[in-house]
Amino acid sequence: MTIIVDGMGGDNAPLQILKGCAMAVEELGVKIIVTGPEALLKQTMDENDIDDNNIEIRHAEEIITMEDDAGSVLKAKRNSSMGLAFDLLKNGEGDAFVSAGNSGAILAGGTLIVKRIANVKRAAFAPVFPSKTGHFMLIDSGANEVCTPEYLDQFGTMGALYMKNAGFCTKPKVGLLNNGTEETKGPELYQQAHALLKENNAFEFIGNVEGRGIFDGTCDVLVADGFAGNILLKTVEGTAMFMMSIMKDALTSTLFSKLLAAMLKPQLRVMKRKLDYTEEGGAVLLGVAKPVVKAHGSSNAKAFKNAIRQAANFARSGAVEKITEQLKAQKETEQAGK
Amino acid sequence: MTIIVDGMGGDNAPLQILKGCAMAVEELGVKIIVTGPEALLKQTMDENDIDDNNIEIRHAEEIITMEDDAGSVLKAKRNSSMGLAFDLLKNGEGDAFVSAGNSGAILAGGTLIVKRIANVKRAAFAPVFPSKTGHFMLIDSGANEVCTPEYLDQFGTMGALYMKNAGFCTKPKVGLLNNGTEETKGPELYQQAHALLKENNAFEFIGNVEGRGIFDGTCDVLVADGFAGNILLKTVEGTAMFMMSIMKDALTSTLFSKLLAAMLKPQLRVMKRKLDYTEEGGAVLLGVAKPVVKAHGSSNAKAFKNAIRQAANFARSGAVEKITEQLKAQKETEQAGK
Repeated sequence: MTIIVDGMGGDNAPLQILKGCAMAVEELGVKIIVTGPEALLKQTMDENDIDDNNIEIRHAEEIITMEDDAGSVLKAKRNSSMGLAFDLLKNGEGDAFVSAGNSGAILAGGTLIVKRIANVKRAAFAPVFPSKTGHFMLIDSGANEVCTPEYLDQFGTMGALYMKNAGFCTKPKVGLLNNGTEETKGPELYQQAHALLKENNAFEFIGNVEGRGIFDGTCDVLVADGFAGNILLKTVEGTAMFMMSIMKDALTSTLFSKLLAAMLKPQLRVMKRKLDYTEEGGAVLLGVAKPVVKAHGSSNAKAFKNAIRQAANFARSGAVEKITEQLKAQKETEQAGK
Repeated sequence: MTIIVDGMGGDNAPLQILKGCAMAVEELGVKIIVTGPEALLKQTMDENDIDDNNIEIRHAEEIITMEDDAGSVLKAKRNSSMGLAFDLLKNGEGDAFVSAGNSGAILAGGTLIVKRIANVKRAAFAPVFPSKTGHFMLIDSGANEVCTPEYLDQFGTMGALYMKNAGFCTKPKVGLLNNGTEETKGPELYQQAHALLKENNAFEFIGNVEGRGIFDGTCDVLVADGFAGNILLKTVEGTAMFMMSIMKDALTSTLFSKLLAAMLKPQLRVMKRKLDYTEEGGAVLLGVAKPVVKAHGSSNAKAFKNAIRQAANFARSGAVEKITEQLKAQKETEQAGK
């Protein structure tokens, strides 16, 4: 298994990215192709004693920044670490691609260079969260600000096939994010998506799900448009950070409480680990013809290693092929019905 | 100060409502008019030794349930505890109204019986949350699933005038919930709302705010359409509940950790109190001609008492009058400009 890595993506590139690559080689037995300015990458590895075993560097001069315009940057900077990585992925030099860089550019590269799977209307970002009973996937977490009911219906299909084939569940249950559980809730987009999801035979549709219930394990896949999904994703992050800071303040408020908290470290570590969404990696990009993973922009080495593991798992799952087959079959059924 | 209370609204009515009323009389020095089936309310107070000092019961036979259709129920059940309460409020028999009942019916009663303030396009629910530096208001948390840019602009005005006059801040800063901080982010509704909010002189507009930053104290008022706002509100609740359950699991995982956690009770209590959004009461209904507060459906006595305090504070703030004046002035400026 070979994973292509954008050596220059994210806030902590290239050091944490390269460290994560070495950890992945060591722990997961994968090979890595990492793209970026060769001299800089080599120097960073040398200076930090990063083992280059099974890590191959491919030179790309330019770098895509968070400020670059996602729509045009891959044309303007095709010889960037990300542009080259997408070309390598397209040409079959690796099984999957991971970047912690500019999300919009990752989406553009997936759509324009790797291309969408036939019959896929829109690709979507889909992170996996922990829940009380296991995990659930949010799809779309921000690729498409404006959606049609048909996009949302396909997000359900793609999410269900990923969760099933990546080993998260056997019979995927899909829910639709909404502001109430009644069928008639939400703007027209959501009412129409509800009707389509209900008729979709690729999964069990459990109806509308409110934000209050997302962590209860009620569904394996939570469908949303990219705007609402992004609000949800970032609100989860914001709330978690706020609670952690209040907890920290409370536990360190007196010398005695600090002492007690120190003794509770193993428990607090378990808790932190359970809440750490980078444990699952980043967000998979569903709907494009090869496995692509967007790691968190602030990934450290461990988080990036987890994203590489997720990419390897994505490639092994065969989810791209399953999505291709299912959407082809649905298209044929649709045409036969006309 | 007289607060009118729907004696039969919410999951724990009438017992917790009546207890909350007695606490409010005792602690806040307000008078209460409570509506509902007289015999039942009297019996509940007698059986539970609830002091009826300054609590006046007004008989209403019917009850509005959570299943009732919000749009029509106030016509069908005008002689309900909520219907009567709205009539009393309209007729000036009290200064503000609190209900833990059906949100849709509260919105309908506010709009159809009490009526909107002149020039208000839509009334909105607006809960107040704790933040790292103080508090912020979310407006709209769910009254309007579908909005226009003009509604969002007015939500900013109303929210700012409430927060200022209710004593939360002196110079209200307003932010627009969005999936990115750049001006051009979000669906068309949000881009157009951004342009209007920027020109609004009733407050300082700080631009787009992501869910990640809402608790950082960056704004006093967070504007959203009712769909996205409701997703945010319930996601905050869901995330907080999930984290609390993981924390509880971690702290009670061994006998020793249980013991340590028991010794940390004072700290954990401070933390819980800081996170308890019912400390601030419920959601105010902004845009109608009298102060109306929606308490949480699952309110216990203390949460309901807090909602009564919020209603008294709302009445004292003069926010209704300030909103009336500001929107009148804005309308005049707008007409003069034509």
